[in-house]
Amino acid sequence: MFHLLKQSGKARRGTLKTAHGEIQTPFFMTIGTVGAVKGLLPSEVKELGGQVILANTYHLHLRPGEDVVEKAGGLHKFMDWDGPILTDSGGYQVFSLSKIRKLKDDGVEFQSHLDGKKIFLTPEKAIEIQMKLGSDIMMVLDECPAADAERKYIEKSLELTTKWAQRCKQFHDAPQSPHNRPTIAPQLLFGIVQGGMHPDLRERSAKELVAIDFDGYAIGGLSVGEPNEVMYQMIEHTVPHLPEDRPRYLMGVGTPQDILEAVERGIDMFDCVLPTRNARHGHLFTSEGIVRIKNERYKEDFTPLDPECGCYTCKHFTKAYLRHLFMANELLSLRLNTLHNVAFYLNLMKQIREAIEEDRFDEFKKEFLNKYNP
Amino acid sequence: MFHLLKQSGKARRGTLKTAHGEIQTPFFMTIGTVGAVKGLLPSEVKELGGQVILANTYHLHLRPGEDVVEKAGGLHKFMDWDGPILTDSGGYQVFSLSKIRKLKDDGVEFQSHLDGKKIFLTPEKAIEIQMKLGSDIMMVLDECPAADAERKYIEKSLELTTKWAQRCKQFHDAPQSPHNRPTIAPQLLFGIVQGGMHPDLRERSAKELVAIDFDGYAIGGLSVGEPNEVMYQMIEHTVPHLPEDRPRYLMGVGTPQDILEAVERGIDMFDCVLPTRNARHGHLFTSEGIVRIKNERYKEDFTPLDPECGCYTCKHFTKAYLRHLFMANELLSLRLNTLHNVAFYLNLMKQIREAIEEDRFDEFKKEFLNKYNP
Repeated sequence: MFHLLKQSGKARRGTLKTAHGEIQTPFFMTIGTVGAVKGLLPSEVKELGGQVILANTYHLHLRPGEDVVEKAGGLHKFMDWDGPILTDSGGYQVFSLSKIRKLKDDGVEFQSHLDGKKIFLTPEKAIEIQMKLGSDIMMVLDECPAADAERKYIEKSLELTTKWAQRCKQFHDAPQSPHNRPTIAPQLLFGIVQGGMHPDLRERSAKELVAIDFDGYAIGGLSVGEPNEVMYQMIEHTVPHLPEDRPRYLMGVGTPQDILEAVERGIDMFDCVLPTRNARHGHLFTSEGIVRIKNERYKEDFTPLDPECGCYTCKHFTKAYLRHLFMANELLSLRLNTLHNVAFYLNLMKQIREAIEEDRFDEFKKEFLNKYNP
Repeated sequence: MFHLLKQSGKARRGTLKTAHGEIQTPFFMTIGTVGAVKGLLPSEVKELGGQVILANTYHLHLRPGEDVVEKAGGLHKFMDWDGPILTDSGGYQVFSLSKIRKLKDDGVEFQSHLDGKKIFLTPEKAIEIQMKLGSDIMMVLDECPAADAERKYIEKSLELTTKWAQRCKQFHDAPQSPHNRPTIAPQLLFGIVQGGMHPDLRERSAKELVAIDFDGYAIGGLSVGEPNEVMYQMIEHTVPHLPEDRPRYLMGVGTPQDILEAVERGIDMFDCVLPTRNARHGHLFTSEGIVRIKNERYKEDFTPLDPECGCYTCKHFTKAYLRHLFMANELLSLRLNTLHNVAFYLNLMKQIREAIEEDRFDEFKKEFLNKYNP
């Protein structure tokens, strides 16, 4: 399922087979929270080199509901994307979006951020929803403790996360599980390593999950406010305890620099709202660093946003026009900016893959960062 | 410049030659207020059959300013649209958007709706701005009286509009005018008939403008709250006084039915915010009438929005998905809805042109409305 093709230092180049095609690793997943990438067509994401879209179980459960998606023929058909889809378990959103949440041994009670309705999510329910959505990669339900939580809390949370991971795996593997109906394409299931900023807890979490045996392993609970260096250290403390033959996914990360640092430490998969969300705030990624397009200096700048980028935005419009659209709150501004930022991230991943193939990842990383962060 | 190819009753099929290509009439102009169609690329507008984009002098004067656009190489280059552009004079926006406006004989003082800055717009200035923008069809500065204005006011306003029209024409024709610099492509200039809901004033306005001799004639001040029948009557009272060999433009109109009624009465050109604005409110035009996509009945409707439409939205997505995106306030909803509504309007115009060519306009109109308004 995961096939390692090449290493450059610890950076890995591989392939991951799913029911909707083989993915080239390392890769970045474009966020499609409710089953749509904000402002882009699925066909555009594909043209830009996007391989996987990430959708949110929590959001789709609340609206339109997994039963509607199932009746539509699954999420791929509903949103017109025939490539792989990863769905998270909803765990992170329960902890970040709900005003109340009551943790119990067998699940978590939370309130819909839309209408305040109380919902009880169990590990089994999280998997069942993802089965109905029909994603290619499912995530176990985990608990994501706050960045400033005490060690004692994190320890207890870790135990719960392991227990829930076991129950997810059991439900996934059970012969009566809808997953095992022959009509449903096989869905991969990933565990999520927690453990806060404690190396020993990260190690313990990784080992417990590996004992359960998942198709891949995510590192959760990072990029929650800690210094970058601490995040990189946590990756270093976790990766050695994960099997070589399974993909490694750093959840919710990050900046171009974060991605390079993580690939260097052996990470294969990423997702982040940065390219899409920042695009909407006029915060644009370029090979020469960040362009805040509303800056007065671009008012009469008739050059392309990023001379090294081949996306539609860079080929057809000038910074002056992009600034004008942004200042005028034009809808097209969101679209052109998003298109470019997604192109930038996907192109970075492509360059990373090529650099690993040619065993010059370190060199590429240095060159990229020198130009990006002069 | 305007060439009449065929008539079917009073409905006219012709061509209008501009510096950026020949336009097939009757046609509908997609609104690109600030130099962008809301949510669509210029290349998409063209693919949908769009021939002309309408941009607003008032908005572009305030932001980014006509000097920036001129430095960019003109509006066509700035916004990446190489087809014809029509710019209005700013007159209508001065009267609809500014809190204060002081009419004087030689122009109008108004406040920017963005920052409250006072601006004085003269007929010459309105043309000069449009020359810098480099549009293919320019409109004279007019005064657009309110729908409930008294006859006396409308009469005075009409006189001012005629006087301003003369000054616009003079400025346009003057040998020292930037328009007559050999580097600038020839720009057509249209007059605007006013006269409220008074047939004799409409006649007078038309005759006075025809005496000045414009490249085309618009009918302004309609669709401002009067009953549809009154609007159709005003068209009937105006058209006979306009020359056969010039295009006729009904400003700011309208619904599919309005367009059919106006074409039947000899109108060649239209613009309206309806397809784009209503798209953003989930109000979608289809061959079977209007679909309000948020309606609960579409929750599990897995059929296309309009089975007769070949646009990307209708070919790739279901009503259930479009409803989901709309309910979730997704950015992609605005884009997919706009794409469809613009496709619907442009396709209607194409069908109208074909029906006139084949001398079956009356039949087409009946069939269309029977299905649209059953």
